[in-house]
Amino acid sequence: MKFEVTILGSSSATPIYNRNPTAQVLNINEHLYLVDCAEGTQQQMLRFDVKPSRIDHIFISHLHGDHYLGLMGLISSMHLNGRRKPLQIFGPAPLKEIVDLQFKFSETTLRYEIVFTATNPNEAQIILDNPDVTVETIPLDHRIACTGFLFKEKKRLRKIIKEKVAGLDVPVSHYTLLKKGFDYEAPGGKLYRNDELTTAPGEPKCYAYCSDTLYNQQYFKQIEGASLLYHEATFLHNLLERANETHHTTALQAGEVALKTRAHRLLIGHFSARYKSLNEILDEAKSVFPHTELAIEGNTYEV
Amino acid sequence: MKFEVTILGSSSATPIYNRNPTAQVLNINEHLYLVDCAEGTQQQMLRFDVKPSRIDHIFISHLHGDHYLGLMGLISSMHLNGRRKPLQIFGPAPLKEIVDLQFKFSETTLRYEIVFTATNPNEAQIILDNPDVTVETIPLDHRIACTGFLFKEKKRLRKIIKEKVAGLDVPVSHYTLLKKGFDYEAPGGKLYRNDELTTAPGEPKCYAYCSDTLYNQQYFKQIEGASLLYHEATFLHNLLERANETHHTTALQAGEVALKTRAHRLLIGHFSARYKSLNEILDEAKSVFPHTELAIEGNTYEV
Repeated sequence: MKFEVTILGSSSATPIYNRNPTAQVLNINEHLYLVDCAEGTQQQMLRFDVKPSRIDHIFISHLHGDHYLGLMGLISSMHLNGRRKPLQIFGPAPLKEIVDLQFKFSETTLRYEIVFTATNPNEAQIILDNPDVTVETIPLDHRIACTGFLFKEKKRLRKIIKEKVAGLDVPVSHYTLLKKGFDYEAPGGKLYRNDELTTAPGEPKCYAYCSDTLYNQQYFKQIEGASLLYHEATFLHNLLERANETHHTTALQAGEVALKTRAHRLLIGHFSARYKSLNEILDEAKSVFPHTELAIEGNTYEV
Repeated sequence: MKFEVTILGSSSATPIYNRNPTAQVLNINEHLYLVDCAEGTQQQMLRFDVKPSRIDHIFISHLHGDHYLGLMGLISSMHLNGRRKPLQIFGPAPLKEIVDLQFKFSETTLRYEIVFTATNPNEAQIILDNPDVTVETIPLDHRIACTGFLFKEKKRLRKIIKEKVAGLDVPVSHYTLLKKGFDYEAPGGKLYRNDELTTAPGEPKCYAYCSDTLYNQQYFKQIEGASLLYHEATFLHNLLERANETHHTTALQAGEVALKTRAHRLLIGHFSARYKSLNEILDEAKSVFPHTELAIEGNTYEV
């Protein structure tokens, strides 16, 4: 199953050096999930050929402008481009008020339904559960109410060993049962144990999205063992004080989060406008956690 | 005196073909005035090297997203980049409510003052008057309350004929009076008429900005004789019905507005996403009014 993330924005606060503020799009089994939606996200989607019509779920971490000011434009364009199917939006409760107010004054009645789910910044909650994935909120520690999002792939089915099954003339109708782990009894009565005919699937993958947050152990347990951890790394560690004041994380701390939560890989983003080159940020995180990559706009990372 | 306009966005409704929705910046005597501010305007300003810190006045024509959704991002960035001087914003009354609501939920207290002036969509009013320019609203006919803006250069001073004045030893302290049209009496008592020592200034220039509107004679008188008329030309004339439905103008009609109001030159923009190439739009307007140009992003047009 495809499970990957494409970065649409990697800047914090303001756009600069051709870096846009935060937005990223997950492709999970060919369904697109948009995570945060800064100003210019719809332009970035045009640039990187991401089709808005394929997005049915949008997740907004918090109400700082660099994480949601592109939402109105995107959902307006969806309307103008003829969308009819519902759109699910997950985000802080006041987001609905902000959207409704703007549509009221533009006198717009959408031709599609927005199904809005308010996130709770104080408690991890499952907010989406479909055949591919569950999504949980991650309560973070920012200046205003803020949640990350944890995307957990559903447990996958066992894989049939084709040659074995073909040699035994197992009826196709029994394949689903085999994938689910059932044994097979041949017409003559002989029993074949499931693990002779199938192999175990890989561990379900997991993507943890930790947008703006202070380095705070409160969320470590929940994100343990992520296949890919996206974590903000706004500053270098020599600006730790500034990071603490503004409830952000340094690159060194992001590496520590990955290390302590035993992430498989770390992807860092939300870079301060003060860093034109990102080499130092990357080196600093890598000094703690070697499997670190920079979130580069237009790049796609496998989860 | 410098009086020119740089196009930051020329698309209607949605961004497409690397065209952004509406925004433009006027440079009048080295002061910048931003007119409309679609999503992505701050990114366009970075791209075309327009400094937000030089903008003290922003004019919003109406509350369709393609004309104002970049405002929150821009004024937030001004705050983050240390702005202290006040910013004047002119626009429909509910704009203040929209801005205030978003700052409330982002828990932002700006370090500079926004001085907000509500425009009246029913009556032409002078909303700004400074030594360089007066700005009037132009009541337009759109689906929701919408005003254009008329920028009228102040009557300019007469120009001193340097050689004449130097030959007569006119004291420098008298130059201002000469520029204002006063005669000069030399120490011996001889009177020099002002028109011997100065030349008349050019006619004050005038920029008329007519964003979204139905072709409607109601605003023709007010914009008469504009040095440069910016007029929307969303559709080709074969889509007149669609233009009427949506309260927009065709390229042919934009040419007619320029012709009937005796504009010196016409600049057309706000192009529908259905037109990848703009040649036909330009040709159609030119067939009625030859002095027509396309509003091209990044280009600067002298008023």
